[in-house]
Amino acid sequence: MLNGEMFIGAAAVRGEHGSVRGYNPATGEDLEPAYGLASAAEVDRACALAWAAFDTYRDTPLEQRAAFLERIAQNILDLGDALVERAMAESGLPRARIEGERGRTVGQLRLFAEVVREGSWLEVRLDSAQPQRQPLPRSDLRQRHIAVGPVAVFGASNFPLAFSVAGGDTASALAAGCPVVVKAHSAHPGTSELVGRAIRDAAAQCGMPEGVFSLLFAERDNAVKLVTDWRIKSVGFTGSRGGGMSLVRACAGRPEPIPVFAEMSSINPVFLLPAALKERAESIGKNFIASLTMGAGQFCTNPGLVLTLEGPETDAFLRSASAALEASAGATMLTAGIHRAYEQGVAKIAANEQVKTIARGTAGTTKHACQGGLFLATAADFLADPEMQEEIFGAASLVVACKNLDEMRAVAERLEGQLTATIQMEAEDEAIARSLLPTLERKAGRILVNGYPTGVEVCHAMVHGGPFPATSDARMTSVGTLAIRRFLRPVCYQDLPQALLPQALRDDNPLQLPRRLDGRLALPEQGKA
Amino acid sequence: MLNGEMFIGAAAVRGEHGSVRGYNPATGEDLEPAYGLASAAEVDRACALAWAAFDTYRDTPLEQRAAFLERIAQNILDLGDALVERAMAESGLPRARIEGERGRTVGQLRLFAEVVREGSWLEVRLDSAQPQRQPLPRSDLRQRHIAVGPVAVFGASNFPLAFSVAGGDTASALAAGCPVVVKAHSAHPGTSELVGRAIRDAAAQCGMPEGVFSLLFAERDNAVKLVTDWRIKSVGFTGSRGGGMSLVRACAGRPEPIPVFAEMSSINPVFLLPAALKERAESIGKNFIASLTMGAGQFCTNPGLVLTLEGPETDAFLRSASAALEASAGATMLTAGIHRAYEQGVAKIAANEQVKTIARGTAGTTKHACQGGLFLATAADFLADPEMQEEIFGAASLVVACKNLDEMRAVAERLEGQLTATIQMEAEDEAIARSLLPTLERKAGRILVNGYPTGVEVCHAMVHGGPFPATSDARMTSVGTLAIRRFLRPVCYQDLPQALLPQALRDDNPLQLPRRLDGRLALPEQGKA
Repeated sequence: MLNGEMFIGAAAVRGEHGSVRGYNPATGEDLEPAYGLASAAEVDRACALAWAAFDTYRDTPLEQRAAFLERIAQNILDLGDALVERAMAESGLPRARIEGERGRTVGQLRLFAEVVREGSWLEVRLDSAQPQRQPLPRSDLRQRHIAVGPVAVFGASNFPLAFSVAGGDTASALAAGCPVVVKAHSAHPGTSELVGRAIRDAAAQCGMPEGVFSLLFAERDNAVKLVTDWRIKSVGFTGSRGGGMSLVRACAGRPEPIPVFAEMSSINPVFLLPAALKERAESIGKNFIASLTMGAGQFCTNPGLVLTLEGPETDAFLRSASAALEASAGATMLTAGIHRAYEQGVAKIAANEQVKTIARGTAGTTKHACQGGLFLATAADFLADPEMQEEIFGAASLVVACKNLDEMRAVAERLEGQLTATIQMEAEDEAIARSLLPTLERKAGRILVNGYPTGVEVCHAMVHGGPFPATSDARMTSVGTLAIRRFLRPVCYQDLPQALLPQALRDDNPLQLPRRLDGRLALPEQGKA
Repeated sequence: MLNGEMFIGAAAVRGEHGSVRGYNPATGEDLEPAYGLASAAEVDRACALAWAAFDTYRDTPLEQRAAFLERIAQNILDLGDALVERAMAESGLPRARIEGERGRTVGQLRLFAEVVREGSWLEVRLDSAQPQRQPLPRSDLRQRHIAVGPVAVFGASNFPLAFSVAGGDTASALAAGCPVVVKAHSAHPGTSELVGRAIRDAAAQCGMPEGVFSLLFAERDNAVKLVTDWRIKSVGFTGSRGGGMSLVRACAGRPEPIPVFAEMSSINPVFLLPAALKERAESIGKNFIASLTMGAGQFCTNPGLVLTLEGPETDAFLRSASAALEASAGATMLTAGIHRAYEQGVAKIAANEQVKTIARGTAGTTKHACQGGLFLATAADFLADPEMQEEIFGAASLVVACKNLDEMRAVAERLEGQLTATIQMEAEDEAIARSLLPTLERKAGRILVNGYPTGVEVCHAMVHGGPFPATSDARMTSVGTLAIRRFLRPVCYQDLPQALLPQALRDDNPLQLPRRLDGRLALPEQGKA
């Protein structure tokens, strides 16, 4: 089933611009087959096909588009164990995690199918004409949202299914009506080929225009060529701050600048409030380490920072966390490069004279195992050293001990933008929590109480986003149904005859959409919304 | 009433960093008083006050925030004729236009007050907890939108009221919960002072925090300082492409990049379809010139391009348009600089060897009168010369004669992004119009049939936006109630106790908001939505 091929529209193609192979980070073995990389001409062809497909695809009936998403989901399931095994081999992630991620990926596609059908995302607004108005009559004005154009999606290394070829960016862009050109992550080319074929086949099975989807393997130069192609109108990316910002800069420098939705860097502070620590320092320590070390800490929402108040309860927390970390087995990291960067990050913070190493995990038995790390600094030192805020991608976390609540608030205020902020609290901590909330709202896309930030539910209310550098656009989310909005723009129609209006805007509401009528939100008569 | 003062929070301040005066473009006279420009320290102080006000202001009850907007509107009306006369003197615009613009400005503030009260913009989404779910329970997840932070607003020269100190950017940012720092346009400092004082007073009357509004006069360096201040989180701008892009670049280069909503450049193509021309070439010619010359053509939506098919009907249109233009009086332009740029733009296109000058308006009697211009080129020459697409701000338009519909479509496809696209059609033109629509949707924010693009209704369905270079963010609008979205971002709350949740997200829906409950849109029980 693995041919080392990419998909340029319907065509399976072997690139000849160099090659890349999968790599098993648990064993250190290269995997077969080799994957040929795309030439500039192949990037160009994928963009041309996407452009050619755009007007047709964005105009597909909602039901047909939803069925396409569901067909992709089914085709992924139909790959069966071959997909699971290849993803495990390429990522070092265990079976349960990959199976769970597959479920999430499939569920996400199906959720977006529901979203497409329900149609709120079209955001229909009708303002009626007022021909008698003085001094000037008012026109008939109608608004809907349409797809922005072809979208370039970058697969992420840490979710070979859920943030990759058929992940959230692809699902939401296809739902919006945008053709997608995926640049596969080089860490899991085989997984990418399998999923790419599933999408390619679904497009054919559902009668979609060929260019609705392409999958490219490409090195950096041609990835930049992809995002700077004039036919690409938006970019979805999850990865490092450096990688994200290089795409942001490339797209800002285009003759026609385009938005880049880069989800980049977050250390996800966890605030341990006094009554909570007093009540359950030991379990917080244990559960925190479980969240920290899950998946070798390779989550955007990994809790890389803990804020607590100096004192015996914090000492108890540190003892519990240390014991849990020391007992944790070092899990295999995704790639040799990620492992190297992790080791460098840990070495750097351990060498910081203001930082104390509290505990390390076990070294692990596989080739690229993540040895967890727990570190401690004072709030005063943290405030004086911006480098302590740098994300270490993996199972490392820094505990910042504050002298008092004012210092804790000062640290909170000094944080960069985050995906999440977590509060561990009891009822007695409510006043403190309330005083932190305004700061946390300004800093983070998601605020949690008594949970841990790892684990991002795909649902309607989720925000997987946040102020820079968590993302390049705090007004959006890359997980959850609101993610579709990244790829839509409003268009207003003034005095169009009914026959020329898109179905979504016709008086009789044939699509049964929720609408805003002269400013008043109205649900469709029956059934859908 | 005019003291030459700016407002830094509640304080009326005379800047001492140089000065600027209003100028009457009809007479060429400088106007009293001189306006002192802000120093860097004064910019800093306005930002500090805005930041200090932010958490309080964004948390004001909706009713109180709405009343604040309405109080601003009333205070503007209470300025009476002094405001109208000063705006006329500083802009060269006639009384009826300024009075109409005042009505629009006041109506816009009141409309946003309604929007604030209704609360859909909070976009409340509640996903209920599923504690029994296997393999993992689901948390309680709730989403609302919050204000992004203090917003810098740049007054535009061409709407001294509706796109200036209390214009659409200010109204929508205040509605969203963002403090606003306005950088006044130097073309109407007196108008700016009057309106600025009206807002400053409204803030005090409504018990708003002092820093919710500041008004600065500033030269370029300090304007850049304003948008690159770390406390400013978004920018609203209406003006030239050069001015907008310089702000976009400055904000992209910040340590924390922020979005700039710049509405910049558009030539607003008008498509004359064959049956329409056959039916009413003469009236189209006349009405087109009325739209072109209104307000000396100083509208973002001015029709600067006409696409038509070669033939006798087009000849008839040109005769009618020429006669109307030649009969038109040259109206005073807003500033000496705009007049100079207009003359240069017209001279440049007139000197283009592929362009024929069809008609000119009368020269006008005031110092900076706009002499309209109508020019003609073939589609082939237009396609070969991108400079023919450059906006000439003022009453100049280029007619592009196409050999056939394919050529017309090719020209449409070659256009840059636009605020508007207009079709003049009859029922017999429907198939042609339908074939143009996909292209026009991709190119423009608003599509009109049988109207003219000047005149932008402030309502729910309006889109005053469009692909680059019409704006720097095609996903947004700067006019109409959707404009509030520019200044909002989503935040998700996971497992917060009811007591800590913002009112908008509480189970009992105390604000009576429309909500999405487990994906299903629901209107409040009674009353509001």
